[in-house]
Amino acid sequence: MKIREAVLTPVAFADAPLLNAMGVHEPFALRSVLQLVCEDGVVGLGESYGDSGFLDQARKVVPLLAGHDVFDLPGLRRKVAEALGGAVFVDEHGLTGGFSSGKTIASVYSLFEVAMLDAQGHALGRPVADLLGGKARDEVEFSAYLFYKFGGHLGAEHDAWGEVTTPEALVGEAKRMIDEYGFTAIKLKAGVFEPAQEVEGIRALADAFPGHPLRIDPNGAWRVETAKKVARDLDGVLEYLEDPTPGIEGMAEVAKHASMPLATNMCVIRFDDVEPAFRQRAVGIVLSDHHFWGGLRDTQALSVLCRTFDVGLSMHSNSHLGISLAAMVHVAAATPHLSYACDTHWPWKTEDVVVPGALVFRDGKVAVPQGPGLGVELDPDALARLHEQYVRCGQTKRDDVTYMRRFTGTFDPNTARW
Amino acid sequence: MKIREAVLTPVAFADAPLLNAMGVHEPFALRSVLQLVCEDGVVGLGESYGDSGFLDQARKVVPLLAGHDVFDLPGLRRKVAEALGGAVFVDEHGLTGGFSSGKTIASVYSLFEVAMLDAQGHALGRPVADLLGGKARDEVEFSAYLFYKFGGHLGAEHDAWGEVTTPEALVGEAKRMIDEYGFTAIKLKAGVFEPAQEVEGIRALADAFPGHPLRIDPNGAWRVETAKKVARDLDGVLEYLEDPTPGIEGMAEVAKHASMPLATNMCVIRFDDVEPAFRQRAVGIVLSDHHFWGGLRDTQALSVLCRTFDVGLSMHSNSHLGISLAAMVHVAAATPHLSYACDTHWPWKTEDVVVPGALVFRDGKVAVPQGPGLGVELDPDALARLHEQYVRCGQTKRDDVTYMRRFTGTFDPNTARW
Repeated sequence: MKIREAVLTPVAFADAPLLNAMGVHEPFALRSVLQLVCEDGVVGLGESYGDSGFLDQARKVVPLLAGHDVFDLPGLRRKVAEALGGAVFVDEHGLTGGFSSGKTIASVYSLFEVAMLDAQGHALGRPVADLLGGKARDEVEFSAYLFYKFGGHLGAEHDAWGEVTTPEALVGEAKRMIDEYGFTAIKLKAGVFEPAQEVEGIRALADAFPGHPLRIDPNGAWRVETAKKVARDLDGVLEYLEDPTPGIEGMAEVAKHASMPLATNMCVIRFDDVEPAFRQRAVGIVLSDHHFWGGLRDTQALSVLCRTFDVGLSMHSNSHLGISLAAMVHVAAATPHLSYACDTHWPWKTEDVVVPGALVFRDGKVAVPQGPGLGVELDPDALARLHEQYVRCGQTKRDDVTYMRRFTGTFDPNTARW
Repeated sequence: MKIREAVLTPVAFADAPLLNAMGVHEPFALRSVLQLVCEDGVVGLGESYGDSGFLDQARKVVPLLAGHDVFDLPGLRRKVAEALGGAVFVDEHGLTGGFSSGKTIASVYSLFEVAMLDAQGHALGRPVADLLGGKARDEVEFSAYLFYKFGGHLGAEHDAWGEVTTPEALVGEAKRMIDEYGFTAIKLKAGVFEPAQEVEGIRALADAFPGHPLRIDPNGAWRVETAKKVARDLDGVLEYLEDPTPGIEGMAEVAKHASMPLATNMCVIRFDDVEPAFRQRAVGIVLSDHHFWGGLRDTQALSVLCRTFDVGLSMHSNSHLGISLAAMVHVAAATPHLSYACDTHWPWKTEDVVVPGALVFRDGKVAVPQGPGLGVELDPDALARLHEQYVRCGQTKRDDVTYMRRFTGTFDPNTARW
């Protein structure tokens, strides 16, 4: 089945002022929505980053796809590599590790691969999970993704979540999120306050939610010695410690002294990182992310690497919409080795481009959509609205640093400040 | 789409008296042919070993498949593991490395996985390669698989290939095979004669076929020092040196001193072997084999392990029929990292269970069959004939050792004799 036309639409959706080591989320999160219009009226959907640097690269591929067979994924990979040459997409927030031409190819390929798999599924009348080897589970578990946050955006009222900077407020945020979604595992985005304060936050969560697996992720904001101290302080409290410090060598040093496994979506971000990281036993868990690991099939390949080297597998999340959540659910369902609840920013979002109903959280889990392909349907009015919002908002790339400076006057992004 | 019934049929097909470190091939090679009869009249085909030890295990799964969804591969893996418990299938020739419950599960799973993928392809109207990510290549290259051999079976006339024990006869065998099939790469099954004699065989082939990649495979028949000497003697002559000595440690020691990469289908035979072998840099090439690596999808997973650790990938062959060749071609076509011509015993066989025509060698390559699924069709009369032959021949397991003793009086299988 051949592609007739690829249509790539940048969109912006309202986001909350969530704090991290690089600053604070802006009023809108940017994404790109791909429609692969195929013969026989089939449309395959994809979703990825909306930063202009990413769009520039993805747009090089768009005009090359007319006539491409949706089953020819190796041909897609060749086309993407040729179209991009050695180009490197740098997302300026830097929260998903380093940049390279290989990672850029993997990211752009992923956008189109997901849409081609969705189109395949529609053509064949089968869910994408079936094209990935079949469902190892019917539901995929997610974690409560907690953030410290400002009460509201600059010049705006407080949002419904309010300000969260204290252990008490953090517990309140968790309660609300867990009440609504049923999550068991809890993840705290850290790297925002002094490590001792964030350790207090985790302790408060441990007290309030006994038995719930807890994770903390400062995005590499701590030096090795600080990370070791946090690991000691939270001995017996954490399920895993995520990216406490930058780089494979630093992680390997922390890992030697930490009782809990270290997880990463920053120092093992492409297949080239696997050998050095695994040889040094730097990480116990890789947080996969199909958006930059080269799509759904390569995410499964990563899972085999992890299984073979006795490394766990979980899943990273950026702010995303329903197409990406559907892709995450399908690949997670079809990946037996997935050993931890996945991350998602889903609760922080109030808008989407897909028709509601296909993706429902129950007890912290999302059932694999039943329909063919990804099992989600694009809402053309919502797409137009969120594209219009993209045009109006004026944001063209994620820049948490500059937005943070508008709140605080001065701010340095935290790359191992503590 | 649900399975109605699984039908497993042992068959025997005429084989030539081919020599190896364990003795000589018996008059018949044994295989099992699986038919998964599904709803809507779809039949999925699989093929694997025909030894009674394997059949005993596979037959435990057969009655459990009625009602199983052909898209539920994870469920198949669970059923196989449960049905087999900790059972271990030991093939007595030992030419594919050690035995374990995990390898047994992987082997039995593979038989059914291939048939389920064939059924999926028929149901969806797509070739199996498309269900494995699409074709990275349209044709799959194979090597000329040379054997020393007796002129004929006990009590029989010489076969058309005649006796092959000298360098001259080896070159003649190669010429004939290359004339007929167009192979470029040439592999010599060794471990039969003194190493010096086999080195002479390779030198004769190098002289007769300049520019053709050459391989030699003694199935671990040499001690480490012997293997090092052969590596020195054939420096600059071999494409790769296959299983010169048994075990990961021995291979690692030889690899340190060999100028050419070492290949294996004996010391890296399951995912558990990958970490120790790769850490010790024991092998430069893994010879995959879907029959014991857990099917077509796990073969692709192995390819990602190899690619990630900069290890090459080729493909091992046992005596097989057309269903297995089709499966080998589909997975090889859909596996971009495959970096060497694959092995096949195809030229040694004169009988098959599939309708001729779908699998054609041209310039040493086989084009991926165009039809849905594996693209081969079972010939029910041929199946009946080869099953009848199985019953009549009285062989129930491959036993090259005992058959060799009938030729030579005494014979010890060669496990690092030289």
